[in-house]
Amino acid sequence: MQIARSMAEIRSATAQARQNATSSDAESLALVPTMGALHAGHLELVRAAKATGAKVVTSIFVNPLQFGANEDLSRYPRDEAGDLAKLQAAGCDVAWLPGVDVMYPPGDATLISVGGPSAGFEGAARPGHFTGVATVVAKLFGQTGAGAAFFGAKDWQQVQVIRRMVEDLCLPVAINVVPTMREASGLAMSSRNRFLSDEERVVAPALYATLNDAAIRLRAGDKAADVLAQAEAALRARGFVPDYVSLVEARSLQPIAVLGAENRLLAAARLGSVRLLDNIEV
Amino acid sequence: MQIARSMAEIRSATAQARQNATSSDAESLALVPTMGALHAGHLELVRAAKATGAKVVTSIFVNPLQFGANEDLSRYPRDEAGDLAKLQAAGCDVAWLPGVDVMYPPGDATLISVGGPSAGFEGAARPGHFTGVATVVAKLFGQTGAGAAFFGAKDWQQVQVIRRMVEDLCLPVAINVVPTMREASGLAMSSRNRFLSDEERVVAPALYATLNDAAIRLRAGDKAADVLAQAEAALRARGFVPDYVSLVEARSLQPIAVLGAENRLLAAARLGSVRLLDNIEV
Repeated sequence: MQIARSMAEIRSATAQARQNATSSDAESLALVPTMGALHAGHLELVRAAKATGAKVVTSIFVNPLQFGANEDLSRYPRDEAGDLAKLQAAGCDVAWLPGVDVMYPPGDATLISVGGPSAGFEGAARPGHFTGVATVVAKLFGQTGAGAAFFGAKDWQQVQVIRRMVEDLCLPVAINVVPTMREASGLAMSSRNRFLSDEERVVAPALYATLNDAAIRLRAGDKAADVLAQAEAALRARGFVPDYVSLVEARSLQPIAVLGAENRLLAAARLGSVRLLDNIEV
Repeated sequence: MQIARSMAEIRSATAQARQNATSSDAESLALVPTMGALHAGHLELVRAAKATGAKVVTSIFVNPLQFGANEDLSRYPRDEAGDLAKLQAAGCDVAWLPGVDVMYPPGDATLISVGGPSAGFEGAARPGHFTGVATVVAKLFGQTGAGAAFFGAKDWQQVQVIRRMVEDLCLPVAINVVPTMREASGLAMSSRNRFLSDEERVVAPALYATLNDAAIRLRAGDKAADVLAQAEAALRARGFVPDYVSLVEARSLQPIAVLGAENRLLAAARLGSVRLLDNIEV
């Protein structure tokens, strides 16, 4: 596995990976963007990318631009040596580790804002977050020249924001969404899980269980407003502080009252100091 | 010359142009973005692009997003039949004529804002203008897949905004800047010139002449503040209402008082109802 830390190194590493690729088409190079602190969910993205026959670039960059003023960037977990070992074992071809000065060199002045699916939910909870995400992902696309990218369904709203950007700017990148990896308990894998206490770990799987219960009732035809209110009440009863439990059109993230062709249940809830996200198809 | 009006047509036309290109590298397809009402300045961009051996796509799109609420989009001159005849004669390979519904289809929600060189000057006179320019140019890059693009030096600030965006997003497009085409009088060619009265046409070349006088004095070591103030006074004496005459660092557009490595004199001035722009190297 090659490790690149500068623009010259990523240009050289991606050119070499392309040469070694069996196919010459654009999607012969795939990007897996991460913020490091890699868990099995990230490694599943690498495996899914490899399975297409592509050479895989995994980026690790804790992006200051997507953290709010009230969010603790310094608290974000970092484990470069551990991450590199995991990527190597997963068969990743290139690890792209740009510093902040490489991603945002002096004079950098371009921001990409995506309306539509970025409104509400995480966009409301974290002002500016999706502008930071869209901007850094566009940079990663440009830096690597990847023709495909792999994202986890866990951050559903993020995926829709990126899809929107790719469609609007006609970016030559195929967006692949990989199902959320879960612990045996059902808890969605997340780098935030390490901040849960032992007691909270016992309770945390209730978020996924509550979404599944709600989905069953929605499919059975129960009124969405009632189902969502009862899901929030169930979370509160287990000790969560729910931020939202919402039924939305899966692409636009517009709240819906009646099931349509593509539906998604989204939830965010605090458990102690940890804000947990999850979502499922309905 | 192929004429494309839909995404399917531009994809097909650019794929075919690439196949017919003598070189297979990225820059074998070059884009000349225009808003139509083509004059010799635009056709010079096409010729410069052809001269590199590339196949040339010229886009004609009067971009609503770069017009302010107080600016008259409907007054912008349009002459599609005349433009197409000129492009054909100039050897253009593909004319890309997207409608507003193709450029901004329902759900479109992405904006690119560029700070840095977009501050001041036209950015101050036309709030939101450069966001509209950056967004549509990024879309045109994505739609055509061009590896090179040609812009006129006439809109100097616009070129620096686009360069900044390309650098920040690592877009795989080589930006080429072609010197301003001028009438025999020295007047910079512009689609706005058609709105000048016969009397104003006699006066208009004084803008370029004033910039040249100022550049000579700056190179001779005269104090910039004095030279710029006297240039504005000279324009006023000829009947212009100057908006700015400024000496800037050529890339960043930062105003400077002392000549550096790359310098540009920028001017905007109204003559009757027409706002004229010009700029020269110092």
